[in-house]
Amino acid sequence: MSEIQITLPDETIKQVEQGSTSGDVARSIGEGLYRASIAARVNGDIVDLESPIEENTNVEILTNKNPEAHDILLHSSAHLLAQAIKVLYPQAKIAIGPALSDRYYYDIDVDVSINDEVLEKIERKMKELAKQNMQIERVKLSRNDALEKFKNMGEDYKVEIISEIPEEDTISAYQQGEFIDLCRGPHVPSTGKIKYFKLLSCAGAYWRGDEKNKMLQRIYGTAWFTKEELNEFLFNLEEAKKRDHRKLGRELEIYTFDDEVGPGLPLWLPNGTVIIEALENLAKETEGKGGYSRVRTPHLTKGDLYEKSGHLDHYRDSMYPAMDVDGISYFVKPMNCPHHHKIFSATPKSYRDMPVRLAEYGTCYRYEKSGQLFGLMRVRSMQMNDAHIYCTEEQFKDEFLKVCNMYLYYFDVFGIEKYKMRLSLHDPENLGEKYVNEPELWIKTEQLVREALIEGNIPFEEIPGEAAFYGPKIDVQVWSAIGREFTLATNQVDFAIPRRFDLVYVDENNNEQTPLCIHRAPLGTHERFVGFLIEHFGGDFPLWLAPKQVIILPISDKYLSYADALEKKMFDNNIRVSIDSRSEKMGAKIRDAEIKKIPIMLIVGEKEENDGSASVRRRHIGDLGSTSIDELIPEIVDEITTRRRA
Amino acid sequence: MSEIQITLPDETIKQVEQGSTSGDVARSIGEGLYRASIAARVNGDIVDLESPIEENTNVEILTNKNPEAHDILLHSSAHLLAQAIKVLYPQAKIAIGPALSDRYYYDIDVDVSINDEVLEKIERKMKELAKQNMQIERVKLSRNDALEKFKNMGEDYKVEIISEIPEEDTISAYQQGEFIDLCRGPHVPSTGKIKYFKLLSCAGAYWRGDEKNKMLQRIYGTAWFTKEELNEFLFNLEEAKKRDHRKLGRELEIYTFDDEVGPGLPLWLPNGTVIIEALENLAKETEGKGGYSRVRTPHLTKGDLYEKSGHLDHYRDSMYPAMDVDGISYFVKPMNCPHHHKIFSATPKSYRDMPVRLAEYGTCYRYEKSGQLFGLMRVRSMQMNDAHIYCTEEQFKDEFLKVCNMYLYYFDVFGIEKYKMRLSLHDPENLGEKYVNEPELWIKTEQLVREALIEGNIPFEEIPGEAAFYGPKIDVQVWSAIGREFTLATNQVDFAIPRRFDLVYVDENNNEQTPLCIHRAPLGTHERFVGFLIEHFGGDFPLWLAPKQVIILPISDKYLSYADALEKKMFDNNIRVSIDSRSEKMGAKIRDAEIKKIPIMLIVGEKEENDGSASVRRRHIGDLGSTSIDELIPEIVDEITTRRRA
Repeated sequence: MSEIQITLPDETIKQVEQGSTSGDVARSIGEGLYRASIAARVNGDIVDLESPIEENTNVEILTNKNPEAHDILLHSSAHLLAQAIKVLYPQAKIAIGPALSDRYYYDIDVDVSINDEVLEKIERKMKELAKQNMQIERVKLSRNDALEKFKNMGEDYKVEIISEIPEEDTISAYQQGEFIDLCRGPHVPSTGKIKYFKLLSCAGAYWRGDEKNKMLQRIYGTAWFTKEELNEFLFNLEEAKKRDHRKLGRELEIYTFDDEVGPGLPLWLPNGTVIIEALENLAKETEGKGGYSRVRTPHLTKGDLYEKSGHLDHYRDSMYPAMDVDGISYFVKPMNCPHHHKIFSATPKSYRDMPVRLAEYGTCYRYEKSGQLFGLMRVRSMQMNDAHIYCTEEQFKDEFLKVCNMYLYYFDVFGIEKYKMRLSLHDPENLGEKYVNEPELWIKTEQLVREALIEGNIPFEEIPGEAAFYGPKIDVQVWSAIGREFTLATNQVDFAIPRRFDLVYVDENNNEQTPLCIHRAPLGTHERFVGFLIEHFGGDFPLWLAPKQVIILPISDKYLSYADALEKKMFDNNIRVSIDSRSEKMGAKIRDAEIKKIPIMLIVGEKEENDGSASVRRRHIGDLGSTSIDELIPEIVDEITTRRRA
Repeated sequence: MSEIQITLPDETIKQVEQGSTSGDVARSIGEGLYRASIAARVNGDIVDLESPIEENTNVEILTNKNPEAHDILLHSSAHLLAQAIKVLYPQAKIAIGPALSDRYYYDIDVDVSINDEVLEKIERKMKELAKQNMQIERVKLSRNDALEKFKNMGEDYKVEIISEIPEEDTISAYQQGEFIDLCRGPHVPSTGKIKYFKLLSCAGAYWRGDEKNKMLQRIYGTAWFTKEELNEFLFNLEEAKKRDHRKLGRELEIYTFDDEVGPGLPLWLPNGTVIIEALENLAKETEGKGGYSRVRTPHLTKGDLYEKSGHLDHYRDSMYPAMDVDGISYFVKPMNCPHHHKIFSATPKSYRDMPVRLAEYGTCYRYEKSGQLFGLMRVRSMQMNDAHIYCTEEQFKDEFLKVCNMYLYYFDVFGIEKYKMRLSLHDPENLGEKYVNEPELWIKTEQLVREALIEGNIPFEEIPGEAAFYGPKIDVQVWSAIGREFTLATNQVDFAIPRRFDLVYVDENNNEQTPLCIHRAPLGTHERFVGFLIEHFGGDFPLWLAPKQVIILPISDKYLSYADALEKKMFDNNIRVSIDSRSEKMGAKIRDAEIKKIPIMLIVGEKEENDGSASVRRRHIGDLGSTSIDELIPEIVDEITTRRRA
């Protein structure tokens, strides 16, 4: 047999026999590396560790430190789940079992109702099979052999999948012990690699998502490389349940839905309205300092406007149906942009007026199918932290960077530590179709955006072929305190629409010029952002956002007049305060305040009345002892006005 | 001839001959009274001064001091106008000529285009006829004699009117010199009483307002008892033109309409948005102190909600048409009430929670025919200073009075000196039809409202038979600084709807009770209120409302950096400030700032830079000399935060 050359990531070269596997390469480097190996990247493709290498190539051994490895582990765990089920319920038919970002599922057709007890039983069987450390081997089959094989096994769903594959194709499957599953791979080399795992839940799911098909049972599970990772995941999962914005939204009386008002149309209760008004004040203050002007536009509009903007052509499915008014079609607005353009053009503009930054917390209406509605996250009416910046080409980079920095400022305010900016670029091959046909403007604005991000020291990824029709955009992803990802907002450059709306300014030489336009909405919509904040803070809002900031707990009725005076003083300082004047025991009053997640409790009795003080108790911190009112109020006011997190 | 007894208002009794006139009575009291007399109230009816009295009765002589007298003068002036036209253009046909609140008109069919020159000519002829001091005499005619008479005169319009009168009726007409006009009267006794008058304008008007009929020429005029009254009226008329909210709204860039957005749907430009946000802040602050909670509700709603509220039954014509969403009818909301009721009932309420005061600057949509739209005064989308107060019967009077006092507070803030509250009551005969059939609740709540107003020392008028369907209401009328009347808002009691929406609270004895509900909107809608304020202030808004509060005018470019530093300092104090950095002469910069009605100009040059001062110039006051910045800024901030009027 001849030898081939393997180039490792550090550029060292290994000579191995043709047909050696990445596993062999790993072992030749060291037994420790081999034991930690999950798969390999060979010539750029991720493949099984035991897949033979036939020619000179690059090889990178993937251990559990590589981000791609987790996906492989999850996928192999799905196979382990299916294997366990087939051992326990041989009559079961298995459908599909993909990996998701932090979990996997497998859809099963079995005559057993999979409750918690059954899940435990399956999980025990999986542990047993994992311990046996069976080899997981790739098998190649012709399409017809595969069809035959899975038909004989009675795996109807696999048969349906295979029959849609062209006859001449070769199909891969993976075998571990008796169990074989149709699969593209790659997989971990043996079941022993799957150590830290847990089945999570079971739910109904139609075969191929079609309600005309049979309802299968979808079992969710997760798997991790270390016990710590698994525990953190399970902890966050529990937290996510506790922090579910729908659960907390109801318990904390933040918002409600009503059947007679309609699905997807939230009513903000007083507590929720405090939060959204606090967010609006933050935005107004931040945008005010940033030189934005505020505007307000109607929610109803003639169809003409959305003809011009192109929304009726490209976006109609997401719009509410038309209302016929005196023979003219009117729509509730799906976006604020065209209205802002109209305000820009309502008065003549010169270079002295530029940039023009128009901001509005505008309400938009988007039609979503009722089945797709989800709490505050997917709604039909949404109030957006919208603004449009009209600027000259010279001003563009600076303006764009200012917007990005506004994002970073908000991340800091809300303690958002993990975020990602994805710069979506055009694809030169789709100019004139998917992208407005302005090759030079594309190159120029993309470069300006890139430079702005680099100069601003803002980390970002570039994604070609994902831009909007009319210009490059930045999608902003953030992670909540318990590690869940949210798409927060989009920041778009627009060089097509200003021309379509005949927007112009007069330059220094008295010539008309078309401005560039930046669409931006750093705080997204109230609905989605409050939904995010509820989870992020677990309902324990920082003082400036807390619907009720302070509750005064008098030890007995005797101290009610002192409590009243204290309440009035705090009220005059714009602190959201109330008194629990019920004749309950102090323990019960504290417990109730805890349930309502009120950040500050002030206990007042004889000593406090004599001192002019209050005994301060803070949520999650506990008793802070007695403080004089004259010190306490400025401290609280300062915490609120500086928007400190506790 | 026999004598009859005349009782005067001071209860004195005069014996006069039967058939004497009120004029005779006036003359018998004194020649001065007779000269000032216009008409008389005889047995409660207003009649001509020279109308004979046949029996014992009460007589009150009306002079130009009585409010009813002005109406008579205006009506007599209309006759004088028609007389002058018939003298100048004998072929003219006259139609109708009623009195309005402060002017009159007469519709004329004449082959002359009535331009300013013709108006002057007519006015001169009126002066001449007035000087002749012709007697104005009442004539009685049978219907058929009248028909004959006016037919002979060729007065086709009068003939048409008479032919609609039953044959057996007697008709009155008034004669002055050759001129006779069909008229119910009364009139001033002679043309010499008409001294201070002016023709105002001419416009087209269809006979009987029907566009199928001939277009006549409508001449407007006014008349007053004193030169001063006439001059004040003419001054205010000129002011009203200058202050027209549509003219100033455009010039000051407050709002705009756009054809592609649609009629009646205002877009608030940055300057207008400053004003409405300042109004919202005032409302939030005032309502916050008043213990209101803020809420926010969607603008789209299932028809079900407006079925329940009764709007679809009673108010559909003013609603926008339905949108069909997944087979369900949705509407844009015409009112916020049902949504607030839903928020009230979203969480359980006990007597401890009452009263619940829910406030929202909610946007409503009402269909108005496009011909009825008028600037900001009559629009299709409107943002309302809305709130609903849910209270127990015991709390009602106090809550109602608090609302009335909030009105008075706002009147003071805006310098509204003249206002009227009209308490509209039910009519017991229409219970169950026009009014919800709750006789006791009507009596009780009307009495509570009455007591609240009396205890609060709030002047009001009672108007029976004008209540809303579901309870008594107060309509609030205000007058602008130039004396024009505006309907500002309505304040309603509602004892029917809470039951319809199953609103309950649990009382001290654990029984469910239905609350009363007060609807209130003291600042009306943004649209109408800003329209009012533009006229009221003539665009010269008090500092706290002024879109731009301060403009810095550097004497030359050399002082730009000082101007910048000053601007920053003011900006940091939330003052709306900018710099006029153009290389224009100071005179031009001041003139431009005056045109924009910016309240404070700060002129800065060498002296000011050295001093750390600014030379202050205030609109309508002029040069105030130099003030140090350290004194000036707190002064300005104080004027803004206390919302002082200049």
